[in-house]
Amino acid sequence: MNRKVAVVGAGSWGTALGVLLAEKGMNVSLWARREECVREINEQRSNSHYLPDIVIPENITATGDLEAAVKDKEMLVLAVPSQAVRQVLRQMAPVLGDQLAVINTAKGLEMETGLRLSQVMMEELPGPLKQRVAVLSGPSHAEEVSRHLPTAVVATALEKQVAEQVQDLFMAPSFRVYTHSDLTGVELGGALKNIIALCTGISDGLGYGDNTKAALMTRGLAEMARLGVAMGAELMTFAGLAGMGDLVVTCTSMYSRNRRAGIQLGQGKKMPQILKDMGMVVEGVKTTRVAYRLSRDKGVEMPITEEAHQVIYEEQNPREGVANLMLRDKTEEWR
Amino acid sequence: MNRKVAVVGAGSWGTALGVLLAEKGMNVSLWARREECVREINEQRSNSHYLPDIVIPENITATGDLEAAVKDKEMLVLAVPSQAVRQVLRQMAPVLGDQLAVINTAKGLEMETGLRLSQVMMEELPGPLKQRVAVLSGPSHAEEVSRHLPTAVVATALEKQVAEQVQDLFMAPSFRVYTHSDLTGVELGGALKNIIALCTGISDGLGYGDNTKAALMTRGLAEMARLGVAMGAELMTFAGLAGMGDLVVTCTSMYSRNRRAGIQLGQGKKMPQILKDMGMVVEGVKTTRVAYRLSRDKGVEMPITEEAHQVIYEEQNPREGVANLMLRDKTEEWR
Repeated sequence: MNRKVAVVGAGSWGTALGVLLAEKGMNVSLWARREECVREINEQRSNSHYLPDIVIPENITATGDLEAAVKDKEMLVLAVPSQAVRQVLRQMAPVLGDQLAVINTAKGLEMETGLRLSQVMMEELPGPLKQRVAVLSGPSHAEEVSRHLPTAVVATALEKQVAEQVQDLFMAPSFRVYTHSDLTGVELGGALKNIIALCTGISDGLGYGDNTKAALMTRGLAEMARLGVAMGAELMTFAGLAGMGDLVVTCTSMYSRNRRAGIQLGQGKKMPQILKDMGMVVEGVKTTRVAYRLSRDKGVEMPITEEAHQVIYEEQNPREGVANLMLRDKTEEWR
Repeated sequence: MNRKVAVVGAGSWGTALGVLLAEKGMNVSLWARREECVREINEQRSNSHYLPDIVIPENITATGDLEAAVKDKEMLVLAVPSQAVRQVLRQMAPVLGDQLAVINTAKGLEMETGLRLSQVMMEELPGPLKQRVAVLSGPSHAEEVSRHLPTAVVATALEKQVAEQVQDLFMAPSFRVYTHSDLTGVELGGALKNIIALCTGISDGLGYGDNTKAALMTRGLAEMARLGVAMGAELMTFAGLAGMGDLVVTCTSMYSRNRRAGIQLGQGKKMPQILKDMGMVVEGVKTTRVAYRLSRDKGVEMPITEEAHQVIYEEQNPREGVANLMLRDKTEEWR
């Protein structure tokens, strides 16, 4: 297969996916926002800020011109932060036409609207492309994918045929892609898991152990699934790679910015300072706000998300947050 | 509540649970197999081999006399290795009578019979006690429980009332106990997760990353659930504390002997040598054998367990095992 592909966004994940596709022999057009990043990729074959130690293959060409990057490409891969998806699509829409698939890889919900990103895409993409929206998700740290460590993810789309094209596009010996039929569930799994990653980070920052973390992850996945089902997702999706799998990897790895931000919260640092020092987007912070609002709207009980919201936005002491969770009335596990 | 309680087995978990109950004000009779362990607990108030750095409270009395330990106690807690459960029960059965609950905390399946441990208990316990079999399970490293790090577990039994008594027995500010109605699922979750912990250990030993581990855990939980449902368990149990929760903690913590054994396998060491050097029971080794046999008998597809069986018992190269899993035909996630 030798598709003409554009990857929009040259952060860690966009770069890693671009490298993966280039190694499969494709010519990849990679859009980067910052001019010095474009230059570094094209001239030095590296992207040192986001993916140090990786050599960028010659068949990747970086550009700062979004329209030129995506024009006449068969497959588009979006790898920009969640809150930038709408704006980037709006900007590229005029030159889009008969793409086979527009694949989002960001994990979040739109802050103002609470929409899933595929819904944002359908609002912004021109006519026939609305039906060719796809999502790639699952437990996949960019750093590890670029080092060819075995990884398994899911591809989903409105139409099965599109999901299968995405599967074919990315499938590689160390990168196993399963198709999945539940677009809503896959997107919510990827977005909501960042809230729980923040919370397990807080727990780690407070000095709690693996037991605490496992309990937060398990009960966290349960409340993710509750909200998901209320929003039309299938329960089983949350037990899969885009749910549990992504949750596990995000909660246990130091690569996760959400977890690292949580650790600092647990150690007593304040949120605005943490975000300033990290200098990268921490998706879970905004997702917590959106999910908290959604849980209220839908009447879904989400005790962990609620405590996270209090800690992030109301300056609640995180140790009290954990105590609140531990001291609820005794009960059955699945009620 | 001031129950007379016996804890049978003074390994890490038996000791930690004894300490938890003693701290709730109960008088605990703790049976240890080795005479020097009995003496160390009673005279030095420590159990340095299994739970270093913990002071054993004065209201724990250790004894090497099994019958004396359990006689006239209202609640019995079993904390011996899986393969010793039948023999220990047989030895104590003559002095048992009107206990309120006999609670197993070991996680495994009986090697010769493939039985769950509650089934073994029902075979060996005298008349009315057969209905008072209970199980405590979930993500709970002994070392962390003894340090009061927040922990959440499940209690299950044949009869709801017995499960609630177990919940009341153990519930503490840092130790949250949920009741659960699916005895079969809770037991299988606790037993089968050790296979996957061995496998993620192998993956770590081979130098693979968090992506690989998350994929193994997710697909591993799926095959645990498949076997479980075929044996009468409820699917949702595997998404709970006794399934996913325990799996997560066992696969990510260095406390897990199963994981540590797997790491050494991945690094190229042979199984008999690993077991000899560790000098403690590694439950997952025997569980792999039993589960492999069960999956054959029931016609349940368990590709990860199958590869684990090949690596442990047939000296297959572990790197080939992972490659076999990655290169299967492309497919949907839930088929």
